[in-house]
This record gives sequence, structure tokens and C-alpha cells, in this order.
Amino acid sequence: MNLKIALLGGDGIGPEVLAQSVKCLQAVEETFNHHFTYTEGLIGAVAMDKYGSPLPKETIDLCKASDAILFGTIGTLKYDENPSARVRPEQGLLQLRRELQLFTNIRPVKIFPTLVNKSPLKKHVIFGTDFVIYRELTGGIYFGEKKLSEDGTVASDLCEYSEKEISRIAHLAFKAAKNRRKKLTLVDKANVLETSRLWRKVVIRISESYPEVQLDFLFVDNAAMKMMLDPNDFDVILTDNMFGDILSDQGSAICGSKGLLPSASIGNEHAMFEPFHGSYPQAAGKNIANPVASILSTAMMLSHFGLHEESLAVVIAVDKSMKKHVVTKDLNASSKYGTSQVGDFIAGNI
Amino acid sequence: MNLKIALLGGDGIGPEVLAQSVKCLQAVEETFNHHFTYTEGLIGAVAMDKYGSPLPKETIDLCKASDAILFGTIGTLKYDENPSARVRPEQGLLQLRRELQLFTNIRPVKIFPTLVNKSPLKKHVIFGTDFVIYRELTGGIYFGEKKLSEDGTVASDLCEYSEKEISRIAHLAFKAAKNRRKKLTLVDKANVLETSRLWRKVVIRISESYPEVQLDFLFVDNAAMKMMLDPNDFDVILTDNMFGDILSDQGSAICGSKGLLPSASIGNEHAMFEPFHGSYPQAAGKNIANPVASILSTAMMLSHFGLHEESLAVVIAVDKSMKKHVVTKDLNASSKYGTSQVGDFIAGNI
Ligand SMILES: CC(C)[C@H](C(=O)O)[C@@H](O)C(=O)O
Ligand SMILES: CC(C)[C@H](C(=O)O)[C@@H](O)C(=O)O
Repeated sequence: MNLKIALLGGDGIGPEVLAQSVKCLQAVEETFNHHFTYTEGLIGAVAMDKYGSPLPKETIDLCKASDAILFGTIGTLKYDENPSARVRPEQGLLQLRRELQLFTNIRPVKIFPTLVNKSPLKKHVIFGTDFVIYRELTGGIYFGEKKLSEDGTVASDLCEYSEKEISRIAHLAFKAAKNRRKKLTLVDKANVLETSRLWRKVVIRISESYPEVQLDFLFVDNAAMKMMLDPNDFDVILTDNMFGDILSDQGSAICGSKGLLPSASIGNEHAMFEPFHGSYPQAAGKNIANPVASILSTAMMLSHFGLHEESLAVVIAVDKSMKKHVVTKDLNASSKYGTSQVGDFIAGNI
Repeated sequence: MNLKIALLGGDGIGPEVLAQSVKCLQAVEETFNHHFTYTEGLIGAVAMDKYGSPLPKETIDLCKASDAILFGTIGTLKYDENPSARVRPEQGLLQLRRELQLFTNIRPVKIFPTLVNKSPLKKHVIFGTDFVIYRELTGGIYFGEKKLSEDGTVASDLCEYSEKEISRIAHLAFKAAKNRRKKLTLVDKANVLETSRLWRKVVIRISESYPEVQLDFLFVDNAAMKMMLDPNDFDVILTDNMFGDILSDQGSAICGSKGLLPSASIGNEHAMFEPFHGSYPQAAGKNIANPVASILSTAMMLSHFGLHEESLAVVIAVDKSMKKHVVTKDLNASSKYGTSQVGDFIAGNI
């Protein structure tokens, strides 16, 4: 298969972990006889420094012309310290999601058996945890109208959802549940929010087309509680943009390291793959960042294009790195392996 | 001291756990020579059944004429199963908060040393956890304008905050931090939301009046992660209504039982005290609900009126019940004590 891949390293540790992903994809090309081309583009703080915009037009064009986008991470200390800056690196990511209509963010949360002891949760709580969050990514309070009164004393954000926005992601989530343990939990705050009530109405209607999937509902506060007490009871979680942001980060912490989990952001025409984790600017350039989340994002990309054997080869190589303790220091404080060495080991085992 | 106390048992296990609180307050009256009067009022599903409204005018009047309100819990299965019902028991609680302008919800999260093993988190993660959440309770997306388009296909909720709404709770949170470990964490989503940026601006300005308190910032997704990985690092968390709802439930799960944590909702003129936990309708009338959260709410009430010795006496009696294993089944599956017996024991030790 031929694939045109856009590489957006972004800020902080993004470019370093992405470089390991490219190594792995090159190994896949060789082993399975595919042909991928890679083109780099700028986004985030690095793009602001060069072009004055966190998402230059060149980058949008590149992404639109590519089959898939591999994304690193975004954000730097410089902008985090000034939270009220009006132009921020994160806007590059938000605009890109919107521009490419990547309306479904898929975040699998799965415990590696070899890493159960890394979880902050007790073994009997975490054991067997394997769920996936379907987070709406281009609507809700993230993109609704924002206002600041002229005298600066009143601010507002509008959370808005349409039936169409809800139904397109709901179908994807039900399909995923059908291929998994057949359970879908809609997380919302329907006892308070009008948008949540619309989510319930639409999702209940769509559920009729998926009779084999069991649908249940959880208020978001209860969901945060349950993720602490019974995470292994979840299968597919479907939720809006804001709640999905919070719950998926809570979910990623379950695994004990932020550096392990990949994600996919899917639209009708485009698809982007990126680690869950942030840009960790303190670690940039030190060869200490864990590349596994980024590498597993390539596995999600390969599956997305139907290359399931290839995807599995990547996952198996990652598993092997863990079993052989070829891991970065976040997983084993006395490890002598850095970002690049872990990347080499995994690529070498594909 | 004379105090007029309104008792709003509400739905589910609310009335049962509240009855234990009254026992404890009566013990306090006797031991410390106070005079409290108790008047019951209806709220929630029980009020809807009787008056057609979840918050009858009688109840509002009673609350306004009282020095303090003790609240049970709200919500029943009947309404939970029909989430799009337009009149819901929870509205009684939301209206009451708004009507009495109870703008600050205080939720302490503290691990009982005897219960460390109950937490889903590993001992080294949870040990020493002792923080308090200051959640804004009468603004934000809970109370902003809600809309549903005429054809029912588009819904919206407005999240709005004014400087005044932010500054009044911020002052209370800073004062609390000053009396504790002197650390305040503002949790928001300032990289996305206009309201969050207003929170930051106002809180930064107010922090100048509290130079001894260290202020830091955390995006809500990172906060959910940190509550999993490093809960004992928090001191005072200040946040908005929606984020506070989610984080405080996540926080309560840390303690391993939902039945332990109390909360206070404070305004300039009124104060209400209630357990964190929900109405657990499946357990109602079975004498199995844990009354500790409700009883500890009375301790918060006593402190609120400056009765610190009295408050401590309640806390010590609760501690004793745990040390002597006089607890409900959620804490010890083989326990022979019910709600009422635990209440008797604690009241008897005041
Ligand atoms: C960087 C930020 C805007 C982003 C979000 O909130 O969506 C991030 O937290 C994420 O989850 O991808
Ligand atoms: C019952 C519900 C409306 C309420 C809330 O969301 O505020 C509850 O979850 C709480 O936290 O007190």
C-alpha cells in the first residue's frame, strides 16, 4: 500500500517521540512491502515563532493532501505561564481538528499486563481494564461562541450540539461496541444540561439500530467515580468534547505512565494519530521521553487503513520491549535506555 | 447556643442518614448545653409527589427562617430512568442553592487512617491525602441559559461567570488555604474557555492580598490525572461548578466508600450541610446506608457556628466507631451494624 503521511511534531517532546514512530513505520514498510512517504509540517509554538500563527496555511494544505497525519504534542512553558495570551499554540491543534472535521477522538485505555504494578490503582481494581473512550472532538463548549464583556467583567462560553454532530460519532461508537464486549455507556449530565438531554435522546434512538449492544447512562460525576472504583467494568464510553477531555486523562493516569496511550482522531475524510500525553517541555531534547504512546498511534493508523497484521506487529514489538525491560526511565527508574534506544528496539522487532 | 435547624431529608436514604445526624446533635445539645430546634421540610421526588414541585414554597420559607439546613440526598430511580423529564427532583436542590445563594460548596477529602486499605488507590499514593475542594455552586453552565431549537435538533447551555461570582468564592478559598498548608490550585481550562481565562485573571489579582498562599494552576484534565497519581499533593482546590462536580466525586471515590464525606454549601446569609453521596434508592429503608457522611456534615455545621469543641467531639466519636469496627457493611462486609446502630454508637460517644 502507498500512503502519504504528514508529520506534525509540534512542541516539546513531540518531534522526538514522532521520530521513533517513523522508525517503526519504516520497519513496517520493509517487512510488509509498503511504500509510505513522510512530509513534515509546522504547528504550535514552533509555527508561531516562525509564521506568527499556530497553524500556518502550508500545514493545513499538507494535511489535506495526506492520507494520514501523525501528530506529536503541543504547548510550551512560555505560553502556559501566560494563560491569557490570546494566541496560543493549542489553537493550532483545535483549528486543525475543526478544519479537517476530525469529529471522533478514540482513546483506548488498556492495561499492559506487565505494567499492572505501575498503576496507582490496586491490582484487583485495575486488573482486566480495557475500555475505549469515544470523545466528540469538533463541537461543544470548545467551539461554541466565546464572549467577554467590554469592561472585561463577564465572560461566557456556549456549549452547543446538534443532532447531526451527535449521531455521526454515536454510530461509530456503537459499531465499535458491537465488535467488542457490546456495552456502550453514554456519559453526560442530563440532570442539568440541555445538551446532555439531546445526547440521550439521539443516542437512545440510534441504539435501536444496534440491538446487540447494551446501552447504559452515567452522569459524568458518577463516571469519574466509577473510573476510580471499577474501571474494568467499562467497555465503550461515548461522551462530549469537554467530558471526554477530562475522563480520558483520568483514564490515562490509570495506566501508571502518561507515556503509553495512543489516540486517533477520525473524520469522514481525514484521520490523525497522536499520543494522549502532553508536550512535557521540561524533557525536550533529553532523550528521556517515552515513545510508546506515539508508536502505538502508528498501530492505530495501520489498523485504520486495514493493515491489521502490520498493526499487530507493532503492538507485539512494543509488548516485547516491555517484557525485556527495554523501556524509558518513567517505567523503570534504573533503565539505561533512552527515547531513541527504545525506538530502535521496537523498530528492530517488527 | 440556640440554633434553628431545617431538616430536608429528601429521597432515598436521605431521611435515614439524617435521622442519625439528629441523634448526634441531640447528644451535643445535652453534653454541651445547647438548644437546637429541628423542623422538617420536603424537597425532591417526595415533594413532587405531594406538591407537584421539587421545591415547595413552604420549604424555601422554612430554610430562610432557619440558621442552618441539614440536607439528606435527592433523586429516585423513577426519574433517573426518564432523564428527559422536564421537572426533576434534582431541580429542587439546584433551585434551593440558587434561592439561598449558597455560592460556595466546600468538600473536604481526607483519608481516615483506619480506612487507608479501603481506597482503590495504593497506600503510597493515597497516604496523607487531605485536601478540600472549593466548588462554585450557583453559577456557570448549571444556571446559564438553556435552549432547545423548535424542531428539537439543536441544544445549548451557556456557561457564564462574572468577576463578582468568582471573587467572592476565591476569597473564601484563599482564607481556607491560609489556615491550612497555604497552597491553592485553581483548576480550569484556560487554554480553551473564556470563562476560565476570567477565573485566572480574577484569582491572580486576589492572590495579591494573600501573599502567604502559593497559587498554582492546573488544567482540569491534568487535575483529574493528578488526583489519580498524586492526590496527597493537593491542599485547596478552587474551581467552577461543573469541574467541581466531577473532581469532587472523583475525590470522594479516593476514600473507598462513598458514604464517608460531608460537605458544606455556604452563602452570605445561609448555610447548608449535606453528605457528598447520592440517594442510593436501592438501599432506602433497609438500615444499611452509611450515616457517617451525614454525621460529619453536622460537624461541619458546628464548626461553621464556631462550636469547634463540639465539632471535634463528633469527629472523635466517628473515629472511635471506625477503630471499634462499629461500621456499616460498605466498610466491613461481615458487620452486624446497621445505619441506626452506627448512629446510636456515635451519638453515645459524644
Ligand atoms: C491541548 C488541549 C487543547 C487538548 C484538549 O483539551 O482537547 C488536550 O488536552 C487533548 O485532550 O487533546
Ligand atoms: C444532583 C446533582 C444536580 C448535583 C450536582 O451536580 O451538583 C450533585 O451531583 C452534587 O454534586 O451535589
